[in-house]
Amino acid sequence: MKNPIPRSIWTVEEPERLVEIIDQRWLPHKRVVNQLATSHHCYRAILDMEVRGAPLIGTTAAFGMYFALLECKNAGLGFEEFAAKASHLRSSRPTAVNLMWAVDEMLKFIQPNFNNGDVLNATWQKAHQLMEEDATLCRRIGEHGVALIEEVFKQNGGKTVNILTHCNAGSLACTEWGTATSPIYQAHLKGIPVHVWVDETRPRNQGANLTAWELNEAGVPHSLIVDNAGGHLMQHGQVDLVFVGADRVTRNGDAANKIGTYLKALAANDNNVPFYVCLPSTTIDWELNDGIAQIEIEERSQDEVRYIQGKVDNEVKSVLICPEGTSAFNLGFDVTPARLITGIITERGITNATEQGMVSQFPEKQAL
Amino acid sequence: MKNPIPRSIWTVEEPERLVEIIDQRWLPHKRVVNQLATSHHCYRAILDMEVRGAPLIGTTAAFGMYFALLECKNAGLGFEEFAAKASHLRSSRPTAVNLMWAVDEMLKFIQPNFNNGDVLNATWQKAHQLMEEDATLCRRIGEHGVALIEEVFKQNGGKTVNILTHCNAGSLACTEWGTATSPIYQAHLKGIPVHVWVDETRPRNQGANLTAWELNEAGVPHSLIVDNAGGHLMQHGQVDLVFVGADRVTRNGDAANKIGTYLKALAANDNNVPFYVCLPSTTIDWELNDGIAQIEIEERSQDEVRYIQGKVDNEVKSVLICPEGTSAFNLGFDVTPARLITGIITERGITNATEQGMVSQFPEKQAL
Repeated sequence: MKNPIPRSIWTVEEPERLVEIIDQRWLPHKRVVNQLATSHHCYRAILDMEVRGAPLIGTTAAFGMYFALLECKNAGLGFEEFAAKASHLRSSRPTAVNLMWAVDEMLKFIQPNFNNGDVLNATWQKAHQLMEEDATLCRRIGEHGVALIEEVFKQNGGKTVNILTHCNAGSLACTEWGTATSPIYQAHLKGIPVHVWVDETRPRNQGANLTAWELNEAGVPHSLIVDNAGGHLMQHGQVDLVFVGADRVTRNGDAANKIGTYLKALAANDNNVPFYVCLPSTTIDWELNDGIAQIEIEERSQDEVRYIQGKVDNEVKSVLICPEGTSAFNLGFDVTPARLITGIITERGITNATEQGMVSQFPEKQAL
Repeated sequence: MKNPIPRSIWTVEEPERLVEIIDQRWLPHKRVVNQLATSHHCYRAILDMEVRGAPLIGTTAAFGMYFALLECKNAGLGFEEFAAKASHLRSSRPTAVNLMWAVDEMLKFIQPNFNNGDVLNATWQKAHQLMEEDATLCRRIGEHGVALIEEVFKQNGGKTVNILTHCNAGSLACTEWGTATSPIYQAHLKGIPVHVWVDETRPRNQGANLTAWELNEAGVPHSLIVDNAGGHLMQHGQVDLVFVGADRVTRNGDAANKIGTYLKALAANDNNVPFYVCLPSTTIDWELNDGIAQIEIEERSQDEVRYIQGKVDNEVKSVLICPEGTSAFNLGFDVTPARLITGIITERGITNATEQGMVSQFPEKQAL
């Protein structure tokens, strides 16, 4: 099955090795492509949210590790200096476990090969391998998740299946396919009629800016709603399934995701609407078992709340939505407790949001 | 106790009778005062949300009835034509029960006096009476509600009491004091340290635009948050009480209020945070006993979701936050079921959100 929309990250070989990304800060109003050619470019792209979404952050960091190695080799620096650049990359977004995972994978690969003559080529290939693996994991998440949509479609007598999603766990959050959107794209490609309720997802409006954009590109019917609306829609039978992504999931199934996800999970639970969290296993932090107590939640700039970006007079501008002096408080994520999650969808299938369920799907993690 | 901020509606006698209102569509960026001199002005002011908030809509409609009477008298029209103008006023906002209540109160007063020589003066006085009654009801709501804040203050050893509110159930929603804000203002005037979490309240951002503005005017400490944030704050012990207003409450205690209120009630319930709905009894619809099934929810313009208004380049403008062609779905209210409500605060005190509780406070409604 072919992904209906283009990738959000890709590489260029000639005249020199580069990574290109869609600078997501300008979507949906402008399609700007940025070139990343240094480890600091990659760091900034993650920090400033030119790229966002746990899997895409991981892929960007993998290429950042290649550039860090290139810079060390060009300057005649050793592994210690290289490791310092790796730590700098890690500091760009504290909540995204994929960032740590990608940096660790690359470190593990590079360390024993650091002094090999071909380490640069091999590292470039290794980063590509992680990128392709991400695409494969996302495709598989969709192959498992689409069965849930097909089931609703059969049960409701062939009517449109209404799916609510929060933030952007889409193609733009990954290399391609997305996590929460992967089952949706695959249902659409199979001809199952779907309609997506797109939470705008304040403060940064990734739903309005990104999810609406990519569903539009892919031709999937959807409606934009405010973050406040989902509860009412579920109360009135207008949502069949909720699919969201995650930034970090604990071994017992607690899920950190964009702020507001917890409120949607409460509403789904109150109205018996199935609530699924979709993620590649790279998003699971097997060392944690209490998401609410243990997951560090990133506090972000007040101005993300005080200002909203949009298009006016044919330009992209930010408007102030409160009195000049008003102070705001801005948290990036919240944690949905496992008890509110119907199932976790990974590349290996669908499981209960419990330690037992998670470990039965990933038996190699039993011992941790 | 003196209300710390000015009224949102007042009258002028000379050279002709006028009503003046703050045009709330421009707050907090500009303070624009509009004059209402006809029944159609009052209709438009309610429809276009120059005024909003159940009690203030009621007061505006009461004066609208005076102007309707004046127009009929000037044109030599009879009671039937007057009643048609009353129906037109009713159609401006279908969810606000205070609108229906105020139109009914004025009709009941005017009908037997329609042909009296002094009916115009008497009707002008009657509208004033409803306005003053609203101010009194709101003050009393605060007198009952402030006891809850004092109790938390004593229990937490004198630390700041954190209160979350949604939308604007403030002074700007009423004649003065507000409903949900009345206990807060009274606590502040008594020297109890309070801090308010202000939900921005998409789509129209009445929290960011209005509640932040009036709390700032009154000097009450507060922080603006996105609508997505309340669940996390409650999960982490950062909210002591939730106070919201209501647009319509059924005799069994279900509460229609600004869309998103239901989600906050779910989070409060999940975290044992007391959740109170504050309203004058004029907001109770004694004829309904199932809010979710019976309360008509107003569908509003898609553009309230697609565009957000704010200040940019020293002007108030609207920015598009989604792709050009994206369609949106926009509901004004949701219904919080009584089971999620800790208590209903009215001018007569605090009661359980049950029919028994409601009727014990308003025994004259037993028979309905």
